Amino acid sequence: MLRKIKGGVTAAKGFTAACCAAGIKYRGRTDMAMLFSDRPCAAAGTFTTNRVKAAPVVWDMDIVYNEKAAQAVVVNAGIANAATGPEGMRLCEGTAAFTAEALGIPVRRVLLGSTGVIGPQIPLDRITAGVAMMKETLSASEEAGTAASRAIMTTDTVNKEFAVAFELPAPEGGEVTVRLGGMSKGSGMIHPNMCTMLGYLTTDCAIDQALLQKALSSVVPDTFNMITVDGDTSTNDTLLLLANGEAGNAPITAEGPAYEAFREALFSVCRDLAVTMAGDGEGATHLVEMRVYNADTVENAKTLAKSVVGSSLVKAMVYGRDANCGRILCALGYAGPDFDPAKIEVFLDGEKERVTFYTDGCVQPFDEDRALAILSEKAVRFSCDMHMGSAEATAWGCDLTYDYVKINGDYRS
Amino acid sequence: MLRKIKGGVTAAKGFTAACCAAGIKYRGRTDMAMLFSDRPCAAAGTFTTNRVKAAPVVWDMDIVYNEKAAQAVVVNAGIANAATGPEGMRLCEGTAAFTAEALGIPVRRVLLGSTGVIGPQIPLDRITAGVAMMKETLSASEEAGTAASRAIMTTDTVNKEFAVAFELPAPEGGEVTVRLGGMSKGSGMIHPNMCTMLGYLTTDCAIDQALLQKALSSVVPDTFNMITVDGDTSTNDTLLLLANGEAGNAPITAEGPAYEAFREALFSVCRDLAVTMAGDGEGATHLVEMRVYNADTVENAKTLAKSVVGSSLVKAMVYGRDANCGRILCALGYAGPDFDPAKIEVFLDGEKERVTFYTDGCVQPFDEDRALAILSEKAVRFSCDMHMGSAEATAWGCDLTYDYVKINGDYRS
Repeated sequence: MLRKIKGGVTAAKGFTAACCAAGIKYRGRTDMAMLFSDRPCAAAGTFTTNRVKAAPVVWDMDIVYNEKAAQAVVVNAGIANAATGPEGMRLCEGTAAFTAEALGIPVRRVLLGSTGVIGPQIPLDRITAGVAMMKETLSASEEAGTAASRAIMTTDTVNKEFAVAFELPAPEGGEVTVRLGGMSKGSGMIHPNMCTMLGYLTTDCAIDQALLQKALSSVVPDTFNMITVDGDTSTNDTLLLLANGEAGNAPITAEGPAYEAFREALFSVCRDLAVTMAGDGEGATHLVEMRVYNADTVENAKTLAKSVVGSSLVKAMVYGRDANCGRILCALGYAGPDFDPAKIEVFLDGEKERVTFYTDGCVQPFDEDRALAILSEKAVRFSCDMHMGSAEATAWGCDLTYDYVKINGDYRS
Repeated sequence: MLRKIKGGVTAAKGFTAACCAAGIKYRGRTDMAMLFSDRPCAAAGTFTTNRVKAAPVVWDMDIVYNEKAAQAVVVNAGIANAATGPEGMRLCEGTAAFTAEALGIPVRRVLLGSTGVIGPQIPLDRITAGVAMMKETLSASEEAGTAASRAIMTTDTVNKEFAVAFELPAPEGGEVTVRLGGMSKGSGMIHPNMCTMLGYLTTDCAIDQALLQKALSSVVPDTFNMITVDGDTSTNDTLLLLANGEAGNAPITAEGPAYEAFREALFSVCRDLAVTMAGDGEGATHLVEMRVYNADTVENAKTLAKSVVGSSLVKAMVYGRDANCGRILCALGYAGPDFDPAKIEVFLDGEKERVTFYTDGCVQPFDEDRALAILSEKAVRFSCDMHMGSAEATAWGCDLTYDYVKINGDYRS
């Protein structure tokens, strides 16, 4: 049975983590993290669709797509290494070469990640000094994983890490426990820039690389791709998943119950990381959830749900705790999918009760005090019954606040 | 030669306007406007693409598409008459019937418009009392047109009206002067809701209705459809154009030089209204202009330009006067069209000088003081040379400010 456990990237057997204050940009705080597996891992990844890709994204895509294997990840916060031309790529090569030498692994088993201001170059000597420091402190402890999840934060207000454990068949009968954990960072920069999403997942599951990638690619559309903070797709978005097989389960080499159990675990961790990132969007005071159900197709349900959580007017209304439900209706209406406005119903879903906002083609009278109470909950949930079919989707976002403007209007330095 | 003249909806011969304080929602200010032509007009219109259409939009689409003619327009601010079901449609019928009776014209020659909060019903008796008052004060004066443009404002900080005059051939040789003017309202509500765009254009040009609609449909994609305040497409967006032929020009019945002259005049007024609306977006302190040139196709140039002015991060950076040009690059990158990031160039265009932000695949060092000076101009202009072809497009928006959040987070009442 799938169960949540403590920890993040070091929850799975054989993975160690470290972090350090490398002085990339910030002073007096950790800004580099390293993950290491004592055995080679099958590697899977998904990457930003932005045409402008940061150098570490280009590097990782090459490794994941061509080598399909990795053993270490080096990440820095503060500078994104994006729009840095050939010099930015040389930094990646230098970082990977130094890390490989330090850890005694091939250079093309090192993955990289950066988040921060676009444009500046990162001095290689700070990165290599950081890697040398981190090599000495790699640890499999829960604390080491948590420290790594803090080191990659930018304007995040909380670190994000989740892990699960579940059972899979052992090669010669019986069961073994498999663990999967991860960390991610969201939504902003102290010195504002892209809201860059970086996520790193580790598992000790023994699983074929093609299935690892398939599982990852199949859960991302319903988790990380269903959140939005401000609609700006970063140049650096990267999600990596490393599997080292140390759980000792019968290797997963085909789809079936074991693959499904693994996929379910992966979905759980990805969804928890994604929802936490949405709720910790820059300046956010509320998580906003929109569930669209009884839609004609899943694709349409997704488009409709994302349109609502992406609407500036809906986001501002949640911040103001204003039950101005016409804005939800409006955001559904311009999303694209066809529907009959006279047939849908829109609700505000509180923890204890539901308020009907719209039905029979009309905004409904409702008790403003009840609505205000529900809108004061930390997570604000809306839903829409499309009365068209049986497809559904949920999207997550956050409210639009003065602090979002402050964070992103403040000067870089 | 096309020249700008004073005035708006009453600039063209034969058009009168009036306004009144009908108490629809606001107190102590005008909130209704009426336009009337002493002769029947060919009518053209474009309407919101939102699936949820306000009742007056449904009414106007029916009249414009089926009657193709009109003689009066009645508009109210304060309540949008959207999501109001059959009762909302009955209000439209009642308003049109009363107005037709009062003005002595057929009921299906009356066009309607509403802007304001979604959901509430408008009391018919207030509307009819307003129409009765306005009927008595219809005037062809410039002041009457200006007063009408003020009556339809919501959170707009300035009224928007423009007019032009130009010459067209007379039926029996020589030339006559033709006038085209209009008013529009933008970007917000005192009691916040959709930012609803309403625009009303009048001309005394004699022109075939099909060509009138063609001209209108051809200028909207490059003018009103190239502005954004917050990405939320209203349920009420309506642009109407009435032509009564009183200029006495040889009627335009085919494309040719006269049609082109008319189209140019229409484009000029629509662009001026649109740009003014963008710069007066809710809470805005800057107009933001993005010009994309040397693109492969006009469609791609438009998509790229709109992506930049629609980016929350670009908007916040303009508010903060922060030359964080990586955000422009990022917004180009996720817009959709394919391009080579190593080949494009991004500029900040001041009134007197240009700063190169990005070229050769790298963010360029630039003088921060010069950039800050340019970013302090009221209109902030960016441009991008795609080095791919010869197509170009310009989009307009505004910055994202604390006041936008304040206006839209404040409670409705």
